[in-house]
Amino acid sequence: MPRYAFRIEYHGHPFSGWQRQTHVPSVQEAVETALRRLDPGLDAIAAAGRTDAGVHATGQVAHADLARDWTPFRLMEAVNYHLKPDPVAVTAVAAVTADWHARFSAIERRYLYRILVRRAPLVHDAGLAWQVRHPLDAEAMAEGARRLLGQHDFTTFRSTMCQAKSPVKTLDLAQVETRAAGPATEIRLTFHARSFLHNQIRSFAGTLERVGSGAWSPDDVSHALAARDRAACGPVAPPQGLYLTHVGYPEDPFTGS
Amino acid sequence: MPRYAFRIEYHGHPFSGWQRQTHVPSVQEAVETALRRLDPGLDAIAAAGRTDAGVHATGQVAHADLARDWTPFRLMEAVNYHLKPDPVAVTAVAAVTADWHARFSAIERRYLYRILVRRAPLVHDAGLAWQVRHPLDAEAMAEGARRLLGQHDFTTFRSTMCQAKSPVKTLDLAQVETRAAGPATEIRLTFHARSFLHNQIRSFAGTLERVGSGAWSPDDVSHALAARDRAACGPVAPPQGLYLTHVGYPEDPFTGS
Repeated sequence: MPRYAFRIEYHGHPFSGWQRQTHVPSVQEAVETALRRLDPGLDAIAAAGRTDAGVHATGQVAHADLARDWTPFRLMEAVNYHLKPDPVAVTAVAAVTADWHARFSAIERRYLYRILVRRAPLVHDAGLAWQVRHPLDAEAMAEGARRLLGQHDFTTFRSTMCQAKSPVKTLDLAQVETRAAGPATEIRLTFHARSFLHNQIRSFAGTLERVGSGAWSPDDVSHALAARDRAACGPVAPPQGLYLTHVGYPEDPFTGS
Repeated sequence: MPRYAFRIEYHGHPFSGWQRQTHVPSVQEAVETALRRLDPGLDAIAAAGRTDAGVHATGQVAHADLARDWTPFRLMEAVNYHLKPDPVAVTAVAAVTADWHARFSAIERRYLYRILVRRAPLVHDAGLAWQVRHPLDAEAMAEGARRLLGQHDFTTFRSTMCQAKSPVKTLDLAQVETRAAGPATEIRLTFHARSFLHNQIRSFAGTLERVGSGAWSPDDVSHALAARDRAACGPVAPPQGLYLTHVGYPEDPFTGS
């Protein structure tokens, strides 16, 4: 059976997360239901990142084995047709080899966390960012983020529900950028790693917000990390600011698509 | 009675436009209803631009006369509290003199029209841009836009419902910018003028899309303009791409706010 990789974008709000669950809508179910309109015998599909309820993606990647051959463009168009009206879209499709796996072949995940600093309620960005109503010191947040770089035991920044075997991960990038956004300031946190623990980015974002507000110093981030204790973490930031933006593979399957 | 100027942001989708109408929701009604919670005797408020159904604003300006004095920050917070859950927010408030008028004191309006060029349905930008599924030549669109600059009789680009006394307006800026937006290309059209005719920007956007697609040449834009005939216009672009972004006054009332 030919195997296809799908790059998938979704709005997290209506979904209980990527993973299929009984009695609640999931992105996995939405994509599988659309694919079964093309291939009724489809097995469950696998994705690179199991995003939580309310978390967005612009670059989730999944793969599926289909009964027949498709040109990638026609497959993309057909899946998108059947995905309507769910806020889920396939933005690229590629034929991959039978041993290629969306999750196990991945060597990098990239996440974006969007914070909008303003007093007035969000209008066009409602549900698409975390609104913080007090000023944030982005320089201090950047210094706090630097304390997280490299290989560490990230137990402090890991949900107690996390099923990963080891809490040791290597954070390759932790960047804080600011941009003017009308009457708001947008603070964009970007994190790159081979893989992440459950709730790791939202734990980072909530902790760095504490640094930006002045409640924590950058040194407090170092101390929290060294504590290897979930209780030492700052608040977990809400899901609507988080985006899975990119999954990296030894060779990008979507090159040119 | 003290007069206050309000800078207002709104999502156009739920509204029949700025202007109050019987039996349909309007932005004006939403703002007036919120202000009447603070000041039951409030008269109708006046705005700089009467945006159409579905059109967004990030920089609409209106004024109101209130019975008592407010500090601008407290007034902004109170109006925003009462505007919930409508997708309308006041992003700045300023005290102005009794002869200052949101509409008649204005000397410039700025509009943005967002086009997203991609095949897959829009997800996070659904309702916030016009999706075009075929490639557009932004260089040709920029050349077409240049043909509209300056003072002209814009009858071709004016709704037959337009109530302006004269079809002669001066277009001070007509800019076409492109930016990468994930799997999409975003084309941003920006127009500045002292004032605009009804449907003028959407008529420009729909006409320039025809140029970008290759159906029209930039010369065809010049000919359509010279025809001074509504029938010579391209299709009118949909409202969800359009944003009123800024209203200019001899002195910016919101400086520092």
